[in-house]
Amino acid sequence: MDVNLGTIFLSETVGTAMLLLLGGGVVANVVLAKSKGFDGGWLLINFGWGLAVFSGVIVSYASGAHLNPAVTVGIITSGAEEFVPGIPVDFLSTIVYLAAQMLGAIIGAVLVFLAYKKHFDETEDAGAKLGVFSTGPGIRSYGWNFLTEVIGTFVLVFVVLGFGRNGDAAGLASLGALPVALVVIAIGASLGGPTGYAINPARDLGPRIVHALLPIKGKGTSDWSYAWVPVAGPLVGGAIAGLASQVLLPVLT
Amino acid sequence: MDVNLGTIFLSETVGTAMLLLLGGGVVANVVLAKSKGFDGGWLLINFGWGLAVFSGVIVSYASGAHLNPAVTVGIITSGAEEFVPGIPVDFLSTIVYLAAQMLGAIIGAVLVFLAYKKHFDETEDAGAKLGVFSTGPGIRSYGWNFLTEVIGTFVLVFVVLGFGRNGDAAGLASLGALPVALVVIAIGASLGGPTGYAINPARDLGPRIVHALLPIKGKGTSDWSYAWVPVAGPLVGGAIAGLASQVLLPVLT
Amino acid sequence: MDVNLGTIFLSETVGTAMLLLLGGGVVANVVLAKSKGFDGGWLLINFGWGLAVFSGVIVSYASGAHLNPAVTVGIITSGAEEFVPGIPVDFLSTIVYLAAQMLGAIIGAVLVFLAYKKHFDETEDAGAKLGVFSTGPGIRSYGWNFLTEVIGTFVLVFVVLGFGRNGDAAGLASLGALPVALVVIAIGASLGGPTGYAINPARDLGPRIVHALLPIKGKGTSDWSYAWVPVAGPLVGGAIAGLASQVLLPVLT
Amino acid sequence: MDVNLGTIFLSETVGTAMLLLLGGGVVANVVLAKSKGFDGGWLLINFGWGLAVFSGVIVSYASGAHLNPAVTVGIITSGAEEFVPGIPVDFLSTIVYLAAQMLGAIIGAVLVFLAYKKHFDETEDAGAKLGVFSTGPGIRSYGWNFLTEVIGTFVLVFVVLGFGRNGDAAGLASLGALPVALVVIAIGASLGGPTGYAINPARDLGPRIVHALLPIKGKGTSDWSYAWVPVAGPLVGGAIAGLASQVLLPVLT
Repeated sequence: MDVNLGTIFLSETVGTAMLLLLGGGVVANVVLAKSKGFDGGWLLINFGWGLAVFSGVIVSYASGAHLNPAVTVGIITSGAEEFVPGIPVDFLSTIVYLAAQMLGAIIGAVLVFLAYKKHFDETEDAGAKLGVFSTGPGIRSYGWNFLTEVIGTFVLVFVVLGFGRNGDAAGLASLGALPVALVVIAIGASLGGPTGYAINPARDLGPRIVHALLPIKGKGTSDWSYAWVPVAGPLVGGAIAGLASQVLLPVLT
Repeated sequence: MDVNLGTIFLSETVGTAMLLLLGGGVVANVVLAKSKGFDGGWLLINFGWGLAVFSGVIVSYASGAHLNPAVTVGIITSGAEEFVPGIPVDFLSTIVYLAAQMLGAIIGAVLVFLAYKKHFDETEDAGAKLGVFSTGPGIRSYGWNFLTEVIGTFVLVFVVLGFGRNGDAAGLASLGALPVALVVIAIGASLGGPTGYAINPARDLGPRIVHALLPIKGKGTSDWSYAWVPVAGPLVGGAIAGLASQVLLPVLT
Repeated sequence: MDVNLGTIFLSETVGTAMLLLLGGGVVANVVLAKSKGFDGGWLLINFGWGLAVFSGVIVSYASGAHLNPAVTVGIITSGAEEFVPGIPVDFLSTIVYLAAQMLGAIIGAVLVFLAYKKHFDETEDAGAKLGVFSTGPGIRSYGWNFLTEVIGTFVLVFVVLGFGRNGDAAGLASLGALPVALVVIAIGASLGGPTGYAINPARDLGPRIVHALLPIKGKGTSDWSYAWVPVAGPLVGGAIAGLASQVLLPVLT
Repeated sequence: MDVNLGTIFLSETVGTAMLLLLGGGVVANVVLAKSKGFDGGWLLINFGWGLAVFSGVIVSYASGAHLNPAVTVGIITSGAEEFVPGIPVDFLSTIVYLAAQMLGAIIGAVLVFLAYKKHFDETEDAGAKLGVFSTGPGIRSYGWNFLTEVIGTFVLVFVVLGFGRNGDAAGLASLGALPVALVVIAIGASLGGPTGYAINPARDLGPRIVHALLPIKGKGTSDWSYAWVPVAGPLVGGAIAGLASQVLLPVLT
């Protein structure tokens, strides 16, 4: 079937919903009361998010599986002419990617709420409930938190763009989604400590909106004062990665 | 050799027995007294079940390695005409798949009991003993527990059906079993918190029957009042995934 | 270069030494005093052993990377005519495999002792020191311990023989060692609880000899009364797996 | 594009910076105060470093992704004539590799400091702060610590050289970086206990220089008396591995 903007929209929506359902889900499992994975540790969270990417990529190959505005922006600043064959990089296609990612993130967050509804009800800690939806810093310091998100997202987008140098992994069929999953596990393990690694504006903002709107029992603030950090940091990190790839990747290839 | 219904039966039986032997085994390792992996954590359980799927798939390629009635149902509702080449989707072949899955699950559960016999004897907690065989909810609430199983199984079956879009992983030989194993790890890490992720009616019902029948020292109830949830939830989730794949996958491919 | 029995001997020795160096090493890391990975958990041990197999297989492709008498025996009872092309299955070649596996296991265990020498010196618990070399049961019961080793080794050898059905993973180059590593992680996670999963006579007996002979500070008994279990159990499990493969694999292929 | 020494320098610098950013990062995550992964365990550190190698290799294929003077030395003593096609093994090219690795390690360590700046500020333990940059022994004993580093690095370099025997994994595209990542996880899990597995002189010395120079709040000594061990041990281990590969690999291939 021809790929058109409707396909792109559907693919990014489904993929990002899958990403947030599994990614938000692992946090819920670790932080909500009476959950089987309660207090399961950081590596469990890292694997949960990494394999959430793996699963999301598998169901959104049609759109190139960005699932993340920072990836979309990084591809733009890398100077690419098409997102996928037949879909030029332009204002309209970019809006379609971003809108679908936001919608998908919102859908995924709602599904996490439904899957863990009773555990939200029985959890006292309002901060834990917000943590299922959106990231927050270990030490609040907007400038440094922003920088951490820039660095983490730079790694993600630069390495993802680097995959292109080494040939397309699509020949590996379903395992073609594995390298990016491994990189996301790496970023979580290594750079997730200070801010909880949003590294994806849609992943953080979409669920924060859901947190604000849903009637979650005993919920607290949605922490809107921090909300710009996991949006701006990843966008800047992704944009820098795209620019850096223009300089570095041709030399290295 | 030609594939016939006898082959299907044998393949699904062997594969599902392998699945339950290793899947039930990791729970036994974590919850039974004096076991080396006692209190080993949720990620250990997730890897144990994920690699149980990996090992089961490797020994049941002949039947397409469903190992799970929810997968069989999802393939039916996806509108497929054959389960594997030469085996049409019809009432008889479906019964053969389901019967073999139940038999395999029962065999696997008995083998777990034998492998951990002395540890069952020395464990006081009757609930832990049942947990080696069947799932139970963190917070009992049949409707929400059912919904969680629907969502988890939807993810499993939808992603598995999505593998077909991206080409057959069989070219990867034994690593072709890895993608589904990773998805099962993901579901356990992310959606296993509320109900312990049966996501497979045979995986739950077969061992529950074994628990009811075996002379396990100090065993308690087999919790039959909950038993319908991990059967009905996965069947509904798998069926919805198959239907959704009819709508979504052609657009996304 | 032509493969001859000298090649087989060297390859199995190097591969099994690598297996024991990394496999014994992870136990040392987890149980010896003042080690960085002290008390690191069962999943760490499972990954350590699984990736020990991965590393050992990579350096012993020339001999088919048995690294384990139970695998050699399973191949024999499966009715294979050659271990690798040019090496017939006969008494002499079998002896070469087994002798090399024992020698390699001994070398690997000595290297672990050297790498962790100071930590052996500072560890009080004699049982922990033996545990670096050889397995011991959680609950001593020779018959049940034997049965657990039979079941665990059956899984290993049956699945490894099943790899052949699905085509040779050698086309995957170095990743061809991954499937067996994953199966070993699975067995450790799931069936390692009662006996610590020797599932390999050379892995257990060779290091036990090393434990008996080396001047380890404060060492206790080498527990020779248990030593037959992790030798006989795996040999029986491997032999049954080979026989079962004769019946099952042709039907399933 | 033609590969020249400028390409080599850029590739090794970028790759080693990525290695240290993610590798130092996971230690920071586990040891620094108020980090999300605080006290996350040894397996988390092992995965962090292993996937740091994975990510670094992906962005430095142009130079063969040494990222480690011990690998460069091992390739030299293995008798190779070219590092990559068109780059002969000689004094000049070796210096370019080593200089780039040192520079990259320094850049990576500075980035870790920036990403975790506030957490360095709030951490009391000066030893933990040094641990983010450089390794230190569990039990100080220069001779034995040296030996442990020799053994660990021997495994790394010998197995990496062994990959060549089994065909080039580059056909696997981005997954071609996975085998070496798995071996590094294995070494960390199994041989990292006594010294924290530097197994790479640049990985240890570059960041130690950064630790000495940066204005880290409340930092202590850079432990220069130990600094020679994680430099000399890996160089010796790598050199022996290269020599051993000359003897063993032709027989085994």
